[in-house]
Amino acid sequence: MPKPKFVYFFGAGAAEGNGSMKELLGGKGAGLAEMTSIGLPVPAGFTITTEVCDLYYKSGKKYPAGLKEEVGKYVAKLERTTGKKLGDPADPLLVSVRSGAPVSMPGMMETILNLGLTDKSVAGLAAKTGNRRFALDAYRRFIMMYGSTAMGIARKKFDDEFDKVKETLTRKRLGADPETKIGDTDVNADELETLIAKYKALYKKEIKKDFPQDPSDQLWGAIAAVFDSWMAEKAVTYRKVEKLVGVKGTAVNVVQMVFGNKGETSGTGVCFTRDPSSGENVFYGDYLINAQGEDVVAGIRTPLKLTEFAKKDPAAYKQLCDVRTKLEKHYKDMQDMEFTVEEGKLYMLQCRAGKRTPAAAFRIAVDLVAEKLITKETAVSRIKTTDIEGIFYPAIDKSHAAEMKKSFLVQGIDAVPGAAAGKVYFSAEKAEDEAAKGTPVILVRKETSPEDVGGMHAASGILTATGGKTSHAAVVARGWGKCCIVGCEQLSVDYEARSFSVGDVTVKEGDWITLDGSNGNVYLGALKLIQPKLPKSYETLMGWVDEIRKVRVRTNADTPYDAAAARSRGAEGIGLCRTEHMFFDSEERILAIRSMIIADNAEDRKKALKTLLPIQTKDFEKIFKAMDGLGVTVRLIDPPLHEFVPHDEEGQRALAKACGMRFEVVRQRIEKLHEANPMLGHRGCRLAVTYPEILDMQVTAIMTAACNMAKKGVKVFPEIMVPLVIDEKEFAILEERIRAVAGEILAKKGVQIAYKVGTMIETPRAAILAGEIASRAEFFSFGTNDLTQMTLGMSRDDAGKFLPDYVDEHKAAIFRQDPFQSLDQKGVGLLVKNAITAARVVRKDIKLGICGEHGGDLESVKFCCRIGMDYVSASPFRVPVARLAAAQAAIEEAAEAGTAKTPRAARKPRTVRKTAADAKPAGTRRPRAKKAGNPQ
Amino acid sequence: MPKPKFVYFFGAGAAEGNGSMKELLGGKGAGLAEMTSIGLPVPAGFTITTEVCDLYYKSGKKYPAGLKEEVGKYVAKLERTTGKKLGDPADPLLVSVRSGAPVSMPGMMETILNLGLTDKSVAGLAAKTGNRRFALDAYRRFIMMYGSTAMGIARKKFDDEFDKVKETLTRKRLGADPETKIGDTDVNADELETLIAKYKALYKKEIKKDFPQDPSDQLWGAIAAVFDSWMAEKAVTYRKVEKLVGVKGTAVNVVQMVFGNKGETSGTGVCFTRDPSSGENVFYGDYLINAQGEDVVAGIRTPLKLTEFAKKDPAAYKQLCDVRTKLEKHYKDMQDMEFTVEEGKLYMLQCRAGKRTPAAAFRIAVDLVAEKLITKETAVSRIKTTDIEGIFYPAIDKSHAAEMKKSFLVQGIDAVPGAAAGKVYFSAEKAEDEAAKGTPVILVRKETSPEDVGGMHAASGILTATGGKTSHAAVVARGWGKCCIVGCEQLSVDYEARSFSVGDVTVKEGDWITLDGSNGNVYLGALKLIQPKLPKSYETLMGWVDEIRKVRVRTNADTPYDAAAARSRGAEGIGLCRTEHMFFDSEERILAIRSMIIADNAEDRKKALKTLLPIQTKDFEKIFKAMDGLGVTVRLIDPPLHEFVPHDEEGQRALAKACGMRFEVVRQRIEKLHEANPMLGHRGCRLAVTYPEILDMQVTAIMTAACNMAKKGVKVFPEIMVPLVIDEKEFAILEERIRAVAGEILAKKGVQIAYKVGTMIETPRAAILAGEIASRAEFFSFGTNDLTQMTLGMSRDDAGKFLPDYVDEHKAAIFRQDPFQSLDQKGVGLLVKNAITAARVVRKDIKLGICGEHGGDLESVKFCCRIGMDYVSASPFRVPVARLAAAQAAIEEAAEAGTAKTPRAARKPRTVRKTAADAKPAGTRRPRAKKAGNPQ
Repeated sequence: MPKPKFVYFFGAGAAEGNGSMKELLGGKGAGLAEMTSIGLPVPAGFTITTEVCDLYYKSGKKYPAGLKEEVGKYVAKLERTTGKKLGDPADPLLVSVRSGAPVSMPGMMETILNLGLTDKSVAGLAAKTGNRRFALDAYRRFIMMYGSTAMGIARKKFDDEFDKVKETLTRKRLGADPETKIGDTDVNADELETLIAKYKALYKKEIKKDFPQDPSDQLWGAIAAVFDSWMAEKAVTYRKVEKLVGVKGTAVNVVQMVFGNKGETSGTGVCFTRDPSSGENVFYGDYLINAQGEDVVAGIRTPLKLTEFAKKDPAAYKQLCDVRTKLEKHYKDMQDMEFTVEEGKLYMLQCRAGKRTPAAAFRIAVDLVAEKLITKETAVSRIKTTDIEGIFYPAIDKSHAAEMKKSFLVQGIDAVPGAAAGKVYFSAEKAEDEAAKGTPVILVRKETSPEDVGGMHAASGILTATGGKTSHAAVVARGWGKCCIVGCEQLSVDYEARSFSVGDVTVKEGDWITLDGSNGNVYLGALKLIQPKLPKSYETLMGWVDEIRKVRVRTNADTPYDAAAARSRGAEGIGLCRTEHMFFDSEERILAIRSMIIADNAEDRKKALKTLLPIQTKDFEKIFKAMDGLGVTVRLIDPPLHEFVPHDEEGQRALAKACGMRFEVVRQRIEKLHEANPMLGHRGCRLAVTYPEILDMQVTAIMTAACNMAKKGVKVFPEIMVPLVIDEKEFAILEERIRAVAGEILAKKGVQIAYKVGTMIETPRAAILAGEIASRAEFFSFGTNDLTQMTLGMSRDDAGKFLPDYVDEHKAAIFRQDPFQSLDQKGVGLLVKNAITAARVVRKDIKLGICGEHGGDLESVKFCCRIGMDYVSASPFRVPVARLAAAQAAIEEAAEAGTAKTPRAARKPRTVRKTAADAKPAGTRRPRAKKAGNPQ
Repeated sequence: MPKPKFVYFFGAGAAEGNGSMKELLGGKGAGLAEMTSIGLPVPAGFTITTEVCDLYYKSGKKYPAGLKEEVGKYVAKLERTTGKKLGDPADPLLVSVRSGAPVSMPGMMETILNLGLTDKSVAGLAAKTGNRRFALDAYRRFIMMYGSTAMGIARKKFDDEFDKVKETLTRKRLGADPETKIGDTDVNADELETLIAKYKALYKKEIKKDFPQDPSDQLWGAIAAVFDSWMAEKAVTYRKVEKLVGVKGTAVNVVQMVFGNKGETSGTGVCFTRDPSSGENVFYGDYLINAQGEDVVAGIRTPLKLTEFAKKDPAAYKQLCDVRTKLEKHYKDMQDMEFTVEEGKLYMLQCRAGKRTPAAAFRIAVDLVAEKLITKETAVSRIKTTDIEGIFYPAIDKSHAAEMKKSFLVQGIDAVPGAAAGKVYFSAEKAEDEAAKGTPVILVRKETSPEDVGGMHAASGILTATGGKTSHAAVVARGWGKCCIVGCEQLSVDYEARSFSVGDVTVKEGDWITLDGSNGNVYLGALKLIQPKLPKSYETLMGWVDEIRKVRVRTNADTPYDAAAARSRGAEGIGLCRTEHMFFDSEERILAIRSMIIADNAEDRKKALKTLLPIQTKDFEKIFKAMDGLGVTVRLIDPPLHEFVPHDEEGQRALAKACGMRFEVVRQRIEKLHEANPMLGHRGCRLAVTYPEILDMQVTAIMTAACNMAKKGVKVFPEIMVPLVIDEKEFAILEERIRAVAGEILAKKGVQIAYKVGTMIETPRAAILAGEIASRAEFFSFGTNDLTQMTLGMSRDDAGKFLPDYVDEHKAAIFRQDPFQSLDQKGVGLLVKNAITAARVVRKDIKLGICGEHGGDLESVKFCCRIGMDYVSASPFRVPVARLAAAQAAIEEAAEAGTAKTPRAARKPRTVRKTAADAKPAGTRRPRAKKAGNPQ
């Protein structure tokens, strides 16, 4: 294999690389090459590729053969291009050395400036610039940067030396007890020379070697430092936290120095081509006269706004404006740029797509389409999941960084984004009471259970000590878009004392805390929150999203309130209505369901169910109304019954009293509900098989509600869903019973309603035998939460102990992402894909969707689109994310089809539709939720 | 569709049906047809098919169209054949009506004899036989049988009438206070006539109709009674208990009456063509002179042995001997026959394959081969699983039926067959202590856990209140072939009081009880047990089994003792050695594993593992020695760690003390091990991923033991198995580590050992991605226990609440058998089959086996053979069953291949073998466990 090219040159209007080569050249290197190519003023230089970094680590920190020679060749080329030579005692070439990974990555090596200065060449710089102090100051800074950044000497040791010099000077010049101290700029050339000597001595003491006087040694030292910083703890942690996997390494950029600190016609700045905060099309940035980048970072002097810069130095500003126009035309996106002006001449040091707020992301995307710079598809492709989250959820006002830092308490798992501040309460009951009084409440629990749902709903935020992103707390809170932090293991919750503690800090009931659900941070006290505002451009862009996508988006909603909330976010029906969640809405309901559960025989059970029937009927009526004209998939009762009953003596005694039973009997019945593995226990349709009277009640409630609403002119499309099916026969038995009960209601009410009966596919066996089951089921909804648990043999409640290792890039790295967050496409996805194929063979028009947590995950939704689902169902707050994902999937598919020349393996459009709920507007497969006659 | 034929005639040497038509004609009907065809003396008659019964129930108890006519036609034919007419006042045709299902089924309608007698025809019978009393007695019996059996009048009411008559007669004839009473036969003709009048009055009172005087009405009444008895509670329960599914219904046999009660040259009998108890080739049976079948059943008179019959009535006996010879030649099996002699002439009433003891089953099969009546293959096919169980396990001496009935206490689930009598103890500790003194012990527990293993081993039998056939108690006991009854839910165990109670009966510590593991019955007191003896023919037959089978049989054995036991039963290696079971063998081991588990860091963990290393090494040495020359698959630690630690405060305090830790710390660490769904939690190779030091210790122990034994000349073939794998990468990481550790040991010891590294396939994901995993794994062992749990989403510990409904024919009937007992071939089996196909594509010579509980189940093993596994692994006591199953599978496969003309889809013989452990004798695929040079 021939040696790959290790180094890419740019300079004098030409570059070997370009902007598309981020993977190889890093973001910075690719940007410099691209800017050079399109004629922008960029100092010459070269980039050592990320591949070298990769090889360096693969071979145990050895450079690949040929690198030295190749770098040498390019140094010579740089010298030719600039007309200067490294280390030239007369007019030395100075360079900066920076790291630059394919993605922006804090924690890696910062810049080393002025490389090339030595005891000899510093004189040349002094002579050439006619400024000895400037040259010595540059040398001083270089030794410090090289010593600390490249060689790892503590920066403080250099600062201490400098401070000692300044103290001596202060005493010498201002007397023994001065009121003011002298600053850096007060140190003159001779004194700097003394300081340089001390720096070199410090260097020798620490490194046991003289400070390198050969610029080539300096260069290789800096290159090694960049590569080593790739594996520095900070950088590794960052990649882990940000889930950056598969990044090969960092590139090294060696660029000719330009100086912004050569006087009043020099300076340095950072700017955005548009306002990164609002997205408005105005030039935005800061400029610091007579300064180097380092000074901007240090934040000692206040920079000028660009408008002030324009007044101060119109000529330089004009050059910058030209660059702005050129860059936006070229990149067709808002750019973030670093630049330096040296004695009136502009040099571009970096450019990249600018980071922006979520609101700005929407505005810029929409504006760029209006400006005809990009297509709607491109605009849609640029929106990120976090952009949507950002415009819906409140956030902590980050302008008080110091306060935030001070009040930081602990970090948990970021289950649901958004922020919340409130008073701490430890019981759902108390939380409800306090919230009813108008107090903002944070509910703090070891873990939550269905009994806590009332308090969870009342609270502004939820914090739990245990559980993962798919624990009960997380799933329920996500449904409401309510800020939630889980698995905060350092939390010791003491229910008795009504307090929790983290280390020495104790937080009592009624104390204020603030949660940041976007990163899992918990703060003491009440921090200021910013309430998001939906930008106008949101509606425009989401309109395009709906035009583009081919897959419908439904929602998982269990209450009329959720249903309405989801519909307002664009949900085209309910994909999963979990009937059991309705049972926790009032004391009356809880008691009824509990009496039903502890009933010893079918008669008592039926009596209890009789109480529940009108309640469920009312709920369904409201849900059908909220979803007028759209399909509503109602899942029959699913969870293990023991989830509904109290497990403490007090609760059991209360229940016994309420039911008029002996406590001991209630205790025993509840004990009998205990299961070794409740996930795999007596739940789902197994409940309907053993207690068919529950099914009867639920179907009666659904169909009665549907009839009642239909009579009032509401368009209802009920879909009754059987959970946890494992076999065609099992489904058939229940389907027959459902149809019998439903038929009776319809006959009694004298109403015609086209309802469907289908099933969740959530056991591997159901997925394997999907073809058989499809012979009876009119729709499938893939319950990927449970399907993932069973296929992987991994309980999501217990995976916290080992799953992190499985996702960790530096440990097992078996999954790229938590399979409960992002669908395991290879394993679970294959089951789903095969099930879809088998089902469509048997029933061409079977309706297929997904209703697990994955329905709100970008990559998972894209996968669902690719394998041909008809819809995805997401929790109400994730509906816009799901819509976006579906649109992006359609765009990607179209792009692939375009690239592949021949169209992608022909997936036949699924056009056979049965009920009005499935009708689509003629001649288009584009879903338009709000269009009449298109109810889904 | 043309009407099917509903009625089949037999008589006068010809029959429309034959012996192969059991499904349609029932066992009795098919037997009568076959006997008629081969020229045996059978009274004429006809059979109404089981299909009619099926149609009867499918149409809501209505007879199919055309049945009446068809039966009418056959009655006429029967009248023609016999020369008599039903209801003929001169010489009436009398018939018996009997039910007859495809399988023998108690609880269904018994015989109705003498049908056709009416007030008028009884006179004809009297005249024709010249015996008025005989005729009236027949009529009396008929009314009683018809009234009770067909019409459901309580038999007692008829008996009461008879008793009253007899009492009156007694007073009349013998005086007011007689010492003896008069019997049935003392009642004369006139008195019988009075009784008949009373019977008819009783009939009218109960049925509100006169006793039918039209023989046709009688016949249809009897036919309806037979069909109705199919769904009688007793019959339904029997089918449920015996897991008889898919049986259409019962046939009805209408047969001309013959009379064994016509004097000294008449009689009736039951006999077996060979001794059903020993299998010896001697004629065996009972004969009652001047009697009808009814009298034999009543058991009032003592029947003659056949030898006596031969002396009494040599002519009749000669006819019977001819039949015996003819039947055995014809059926090529031992037959059980019912016959009647009417005035010196023999009539055959029934014949079927005779029931026999397990020992007889072996002897008869082997003898028939010697007699050249059947082939070895047929002999092997005839042996049943229960035959093998029966000759290995002790049984209760059934000769004291009354005592058994009296002492019966309760029935649980029959987890492991065999019987045991012993004193009750409630703790494993106490059980061990008492057993050590030589007391036979029954360990009674609510449920067992690994901590109880010592006590379980010491006990003669185990009884638990909870759990199913695959609960901890059942699985462990099965491994030892130890009698075990589980899930005895009526048992209230009170550990504190050291007693258990069932209803009002309380059994205290030290009381005797007897368990019958073959049916789950528990008896009070010590019943007499029969210790089985292995018949000589067992070895002969099992030799043929081993010649015939193509699949190897290994064993699941965790100790040297089990390994040796299994080998003596024909195991050809260990398919599953569960290392964790070794940890419960002594206090020292338990403490070491517990310290390891509660260790907070890798260092402490390693320290604890250091204690375990020499212990495990020693165990493996012994196991390798026991399996000299055979493969040994060792599974790395699998179960969740919390299974090893004490969950009660006392135990935790003791552990804290032993480890020198604070109780509170121990308590917290153990609490942290709690999991919501341990089955899907931190277990299997996930332990090795998070705590690789455990893997290191175990591999070190295995390989050190292997080297030590190899040096002593033992042929070792270690196979290291990674449990609960879900991904190729996960396996690869562990495989590399295993090879690294193993390589080090081999190098250090200077020994060459061909070891293998493979994996359990027990998660659906592993099965789906088997192709990928096979690229690294040298063998797969399908862990069908867990694979079933996960594929079905069904925890075997919790399935007790609903699985019975799923298996119940009259409820959901989703599974024909408990899927944890017999492999779910359709779902789990498909996963396994596809995994095998995918694996062999990637690695042609991959070794494939099964090691779940299913490895000891007949149908499951046959399935494994069909889909091309190399071996099955069963618990030591199930090894012979697995061998038999493998042979029967081979026979069935050959038969199918023969029938299908073209050979079955060519499965290529897997001949590429790598290690000596896999070598097979040249020119044969037949496994011979004990042959040199053929270690597996």
